[in-house]
Formats: sequence, structure tokens, C-alpha cells
Amino acid sequence: MSAKLTHEEAEALVRSDDPEHPANLICELCRDFYKLGWVTGTGGGISIRHGYFSEHVYLAPSGVQKERIKPEHIFVLPFAQSSVPKPGSQRDFVRIPSKKGLKESACTPLFWNAFTMREAGACIHTHSQHAVLLTLLLPRDAASFRMSHQEMIKGVRTGGVGKTLRFFDTLEVPIIENTADEEDLTEGMAAAMEKYPDAPAILVRRHGVYVWGNTWEQAKTQGECLDYLFEMACKMLQAKLPLVGDE
Amino acid sequence: MSAKLTHEEAEALVRSDDPEHPANLICELCRDFYKLGWVTGTGGGISIRHGYFSEHVYLAPSGVQKERIKPEHIFVLPFAQSSVPKPGSQRDFVRIPSKKGLKESACTPLFWNAFTMREAGACIHTHSQHAVLLTLLLPRDAASFRMSHQEMIKGVRTGGVGKTLRFFDTLEVPIIENTADEEDLTEGMAAAMEKYPDAPAILVRRHGVYVWGNTWEQAKTQGECLDYLFEMACKMLQAKLPLVGDE
Amino acid sequence: MSAKLTHEEAEALVRSDDPEHPANLICELCRDFYKLGWVTGTGGGISIRHGYFSEHVYLAPSGVQKERIKPEHIFVLPFAQSSVPKPGSQRDFVRIPSKKGLKESACTPLFWNAFTMREAGACIHTHSQHAVLLTLLLPRDAASFRMSHQEMIKGVRTGGVGKTLRFFDTLEVPIIENTADEEDLTEGMAAAMEKYPDAPAILVRRHGVYVWGNTWEQAKTQGECLDYLFEMACKMLQAKLPLVGDE
Amino acid sequence: MSAKLTHEEAEALVRSDDPEHPANLICELCRDFYKLGWVTGTGGGISIRHGYFSEHVYLAPSGVQKERIKPEHIFVLPFAQSSVPKPGSQRDFVRIPSKKGLKESACTPLFWNAFTMREAGACIHTHSQHAVLLTLLLPRDAASFRMSHQEMIKGVRTGGVGKTLRFFDTLEVPIIENTADEEDLTEGMAAAMEKYPDAPAILVRRHGVYVWGNTWEQAKTQGECLDYLFEMACKMLQAKLPLVGDE
Repeated sequence: MSAKLTHEEAEALVRSDDPEHPANLICELCRDFYKLGWVTGTGGGISIRHGYFSEHVYLAPSGVQKERIKPEHIFVLPFAQSSVPKPGSQRDFVRIPSKKGLKESACTPLFWNAFTMREAGACIHTHSQHAVLLTLLLPRDAASFRMSHQEMIKGVRTGGVGKTLRFFDTLEVPIIENTADEEDLTEGMAAAMEKYPDAPAILVRRHGVYVWGNTWEQAKTQGECLDYLFEMACKMLQAKLPLVGDE
Repeated sequence: MSAKLTHEEAEALVRSDDPEHPANLICELCRDFYKLGWVTGTGGGISIRHGYFSEHVYLAPSGVQKERIKPEHIFVLPFAQSSVPKPGSQRDFVRIPSKKGLKESACTPLFWNAFTMREAGACIHTHSQHAVLLTLLLPRDAASFRMSHQEMIKGVRTGGVGKTLRFFDTLEVPIIENTADEEDLTEGMAAAMEKYPDAPAILVRRHGVYVWGNTWEQAKTQGECLDYLFEMACKMLQAKLPLVGDE
Repeated sequence: MSAKLTHEEAEALVRSDDPEHPANLICELCRDFYKLGWVTGTGGGISIRHGYFSEHVYLAPSGVQKERIKPEHIFVLPFAQSSVPKPGSQRDFVRIPSKKGLKESACTPLFWNAFTMREAGACIHTHSQHAVLLTLLLPRDAASFRMSHQEMIKGVRTGGVGKTLRFFDTLEVPIIENTADEEDLTEGMAAAMEKYPDAPAILVRRHGVYVWGNTWEQAKTQGECLDYLFEMACKMLQAKLPLVGDE
Repeated sequence: MSAKLTHEEAEALVRSDDPEHPANLICELCRDFYKLGWVTGTGGGISIRHGYFSEHVYLAPSGVQKERIKPEHIFVLPFAQSSVPKPGSQRDFVRIPSKKGLKESACTPLFWNAFTMREAGACIHTHSQHAVLLTLLLPRDAASFRMSHQEMIKGVRTGGVGKTLRFFDTLEVPIIENTADEEDLTEGMAAAMEKYPDAPAILVRRHGVYVWGNTWEQAKTQGECLDYLFEMACKMLQAKLPLVGDE
């Protein structure tokens, strides 16, 4: 179906005066995420679904300075792919940037996990040091990060897209092992999402975190709440304070 | 009395070219507070009283990205309510934003504590990690945070609205327990303000802090001084240095 | 002599299109210092000498938000005062801001120490947490902070206004005790400057630091080098590393 | 050959409306690096090769506030010098800024190491505290910093200009001793680059780091990845976690 768009129609998908259009938002949010230390050194990014029936997925390129992306560098894919994106699979595009050497984000099949398994409208990937350090400070065999009795837990939703957690609930975020290639995380992330249906995010040991939400706003605010909790948990572990309970 | 305003008159309350008009100030200050790490993930905010005889109270909405609020999202309430705002109570409004789904800040009755019990002109609520970590590093049964012999204490006022403290004075900020719902903190905050009439702020364990002042400038500068002292106290506790005295 | 200026002439002293005019610079630098955490909560600031034969001294007001100062809030004093500014002494002015309630910085006689004893062209006062924490982490009876074998030492000048130090030199910054009133530091600072003629700055225990230079550029870059070294020294002390020598 | 340029031709080398022209880029990147804490207090900077066959090298001046450099302050040197820049050697210029007192960066011969030994297109020098603290936290006789099993390692290239490292590879960055004069590091840096041909950077104990890349983009993103790893390594050493392996 993407083949039916003319070049002009495809280019129009990333040109808008609306600052909240996904082609503009991805650029702005990546600049913001850079300042937060989430996407330095080309790592991380955000993907947003857009359009009637969420027909299109907007993606940043792989391996570029995320704080300097422009709308013309954005890839647009039909949400309804011929086959669900897998590591190494061929993908359908409706718009490919003309700048030479650009390749869609290596996170593509991981973003699709959030879109298909949680019906998320946006998914963020960060290399935040708080996320990575947390996976190092927790015991080597910890399968998840658990925390309770923190006001910021109330900003996180069950499964990332459901009801917000309560102060007395225990947040649980699974931790999966890193792989040599980013795309090879796809299966491990999907398995963790199935095993932990209430988890609002997936931590990747020595790598970072994937967070999603119904909308880009909810993905971003949950990303901030979780990053705050990861940082607080690191400080608490360093001070030998328990993460669960309020004793 | 709010019923007497026409729609145009109510809208005019949040439209001004003056950057120091409360509808503009709240937006600007929330952006600044976001950069300070005080209001990430939709948490925290500021409320400002305004007008002849401080007739109106300006409030941000609940659960939105605080760094992206616009003047048209601001709620305006008459300071003289039919009944003092309580958890779950009905409130009088003179201006409600037309954007769907917006609800006034859950901090409303807590801000009113500062307005009625201290005659404050502005009240700030933050989720600053320094405030929260401090409530965790202090002994579990500490009813208050005490500190002396810090130059920054001189930027804080007795009761938040009186004379500035002196270098040799001991600052004391009570710590109350968090509740499941933000509004349910109202009573505990009021009780602590009565028990500690000189306290310039109220810390909420595992949650954050409420700070106020005669004006928004004094609320903000006291918020900065206290946040500085919370951060310094965390570092001193981690280095096993006493917070009171100068030995 | 200041009496000879008309109101228009006095006002012209703070109005300039040149971004490097001291009335503009003080505002810009205070915004920058705020971002560095040097002048939050109304603390700290910078004073600059200006004009043929350095006739005038430009000062920010006391007790205001330093990141929001405007040129019209700046005080201008003749450098040649009837008597050297002392705590509580009357000062000569050539320009007093018309805004009600503004008072010249309480640091005035301390800035004059740098101007008269070192012929400095600018003096900065900060409440940087690195400076304050350093005075707390050092032994209680330490009369000075000493450090060597750091590249950043090479950005600091002997006495603040002489030759730059070498990598193998030992930087020494005296630490004086804080007083109840800022102005009462004047004598202690002067005594320390006499006892340590090579010191580029004066640390004030539990308070902050005074740094100066031949020009505002040298005062600012030395302030940055020293703040970097204070921060590094705190980290080294926490890691139990010696500050002097390179073993 | 530089003698053949007229004054107007030489000045044209630093005047461009293109934000990615090296004379503009160096100014912008130095402002960015200042915010990252890489070049405070006049330290550090970046040099970029430019033009057909990389004929010219663009350099910032020495000892100035790096965040306030303007294109007219930039030095331009022919890449093909009469003799390779050495400490104290005479250099060929095609453009010298007219502002009095400016001298080319003391890093010049060190940048040339990267240009000639790695055919780098850009080289960055920082005084980042993470780099310096790391050289202090590692054992005193450590000849290099080694780290593995970190996603951010994948943003670093073999020798700074080759293939990107893999997750399971061990990054190794040699550490050389600091010297009294910056230029005197030239030989030690060259020797380390010969001994460690795969190293993407050179750490200088108690001083900072030199990083390079094929282009300014690759130099910057590798600088960010390495700084992230230096910071993470400091935190891991402080928490007594091993830097190599994933146990």
C-alpha cells in the first residue's frame, strides 16, 4: 500500500508547521533527551505512531547524533508491515530520507514489540547511566528491579498503558541480558513482556531501557518517572537502603 | 461571585503581555523547575495568588508535563472559596481551561494550607531527589530535618514569611508521612504547620517538599536555598558529618 | 565628585548596546553563574571595575534573584571612595537604581579588598556547593586548602593577578571562618590575603568563596578552574586520595 | 604556499553562512563542550581539517574562554606544514586572527599526532572530570584503562577511525603521564599511539583526554561515548565492581 504514495506525498509526511507533528516532535524530543543524558553518542531515541488508525510509524535514523536530527532525516513505515519486523528482516517503508548512508534505527523491531504487544503509541529507548548502573548495582542474577513506597511510582502505568500505579504498589521492571546486536534483543524483550504483563518497561543489562506509553506524552513522562526511580534506587543501594518497603 | 464573570472576562484573566503575570509566570517557572529536576514526570508545580486583595489563585493542571504548560491551561480560583478546599471537596472556579481532560492540581488543598495558615502569596511543590533522599537518609523515626551553620540558611524565613534566619540559627523542617492520595496530605501538613510555626517548609517522606513565601520571588528563592541545604545535608550524611553545630 | 553627574549622566552609566559593558555583563554572567549553581537563592555575584583609570565600580543589588537582574538594577560607585568601604560604613554612589527596596550587595567591602589589595579588575563571590563541601570535608582546623598535580591548576594565577601557576606548583587557598553578617568577613578576608599573598582566592567555611582577577575574564576563568579543583578535591577526599603529590 | 593568499582570501576562510563550516562549528561545538564540563576555565577544544584534500586545519586560540570564541578568532593552518608541528616549533599559517594577544592552541602538535598518525579529520581535547578522576581511581601504575561489556563501547572505533567495537570487545585506552607544558605531551602521546594502534583515544593522567575521528561528527560521538564510559567506570570503581567481564 505504501507503493501508492507519490514522492511528493511521501515527503509531505515529514513536513509540517505543527510542532507536535511526529517528524518535528522526534527532533525536539531527541534534543531534550540528549540534555537528560539519555541519547548521547548516537545511542537511543524515540519512535511515534501517527495518523488515522495509527497507520504510520516515525523513526529516527541509526548511528547519528540524535540531538541534530532534522525532519528530513526521519523514516516513515506503514504500521501494517508485510511481516512483523524481526532482526535482519526486510521492512516496508513509505518514506526513506534521501540523505545518503542513513539506515532506520536498529531499535525498529524492539519498538514494534511495544506497538504490537501493548498497543503503545510511542516507544523510547535510552542509554541513561541510571538505568545501566542500576543493572550493575543489583545482584548479578536479579531478573527484575523492584521498588515501592516512592511518590514517583504513581506516574507509571500498569503494563505502560493501563492504570497508574499506587504509592503502595510494588513496581517491577524485568532485566534482560544484552546481545551483541541491538536487533537480537527483540526476542528476549518480547519474552520478558509476556512473562511480566504489568511491567511498564524493560531494562537491558549494561545497555539501557525501553519504555512505552499510549501516547508520546505518556511514554515521555513514564520515561522520566522511571529514570528518576532508577537514579534514586542507585543512591539507595549505595547507601544500603532497601528498595521495597518503607522501613 | 465568580459566576458574575463573562467568558471573555474569565479568559482575560490568563492573557497578558506581562511576563510577570501569574498565568505567564507559572509556565516560565515550571520550565525552570523542570531543569532543576523539581517537576519531572508531571510531578510538582507552583500556585500564585494575584490581584487586589489577592482575590485570585492561579493553578497548573494535574498530571501534565509541567515544562510544556501554556497560559490557556491555567485554572483560576477565587481565593475566597465557599468552603476551604479539602480532599475531594467541590471547588469554586472563575476560569477553567477549555482543553478536555484537564483537572486542577491535586495539590490544591495543600497550597491553600500555605495561603490560609501563613498568608503566603505563592506555594511550590517539588519532587526534588535531594528532598526525597534526605527523608530516606535521616533515621526512620526522625520527625524533622535540622541543620545549622550554613550560609544558605540566611536565605530562609521564619515560618516562610517572617524574618530571615541567622547563620547561627538552627533550621527545622518537619517531615510528614506520605499518603496514597496527594490530597490526603492536607491534614498532616496542616498539623505539622501548627506544631512547627517557624518551619519554612514541609518535607513529605518518599515524596518531596512544600515551600511557600510572601511572594513568588520569596517562595522560589527559599525553595532554592532549601533544596541547596537538602542536597548539602545528603552529602554530609553520606560523609558522616553532623548537620547541627560546626565541629 | 559623583555629585557632579546629572541624573541623565548617571543613568547613561548603565545603558549600553555593548554586551561587554559591565552593566550588561553582570546580568549575563549572573545568569551563567546561576546555571553553574554558584548564585542560587539570591546568593553570590560579581563586581566589575570600569572606565578610564577604573573610575567606577559596578555592583548587583543584595538579596535578589541573581539570574533575573537587569541593567537598571545595577549600582555604580566611584572607585575612589571618601573612605574605604567597611562593614556598616556609608558609601559614595554615582548611580542608585530607582526601584524601591534595592540595596547594594552586602559583599561590597569584600570586593573592595580584592580591588585595593590586589588591584583586581573584577571579583566574584559564589556559594558553590563544591567550595562549601570542601571546607567541610577538610579537617576542622585546616587553615587552607592545598592541591597539586592537576592540569587545571595552570589556569590559576599567583595572587589571582600574577603569573599562572605551573603543573608542579602547589595551589594554596586560605579558609576563613564565617561570620553572622557578610560584611563582617571583611577583616578576616583582608588578614588572610595579607598572610597568603600568593593565594588566588579566599574560601569561607560553610559559606563559599571569593575569587578575583585582573579582568572579568580572568576572574571568571579562575573561578571555573578553582571550582573544578574544589569539586575534584571533594571526590578525591571521598575516595581517600591525597590532594598533594602524585603518588 | 600560504603566502599566496591575499588578506581578503585568508579572511574568507573563516566567514561562512554555513553552520557546518569549521569556523562556525568550532565555536558552536566549544559552547556545547562547555555545557558538558569539557572545556571550562579556557581548557580543551577541537581542531577540524577542511577543504579539498583536507588542505586546511582550523584551530581555536589558546587560553581564552572556549564558550565565547567567535569565527574571527580562529586560526587556519595549511595541513602541509614545512615541518610537522613540534613543541616550540615555528608553524605555517594561512590565517591569523587580528585580535591582539591571541596565540594558536597549545594542543596544536597533539592534534597533528591524530591527523598524521591516524589520518583523523578532527581531534578533541577535554579536561572532563570523568577522564581525570578515572586516571586517579585506577592503580597508580596502570598503563591503560580497560573496559568491556558496555553497550556504549559499540560507539567507539578501532584506532578511532576503523570499525566500531563490538559489545564483547575490550576497550583499551592508554594513560600517559602529564608534563609541565602541554606541547611536551606530543612525544608521549605519539609513543602511546604507536604502542596501542587500536586505541581510540589517549588519557593524560591528572589532565584529560585526546579523542579523534574520521570526521568532526565521529570525533564528537566517540568523545561522548568515551566520556560516558569514563564516568560509568568511576562509579563502578567506587562501587568496587570489575570493569572487564560481566560477572
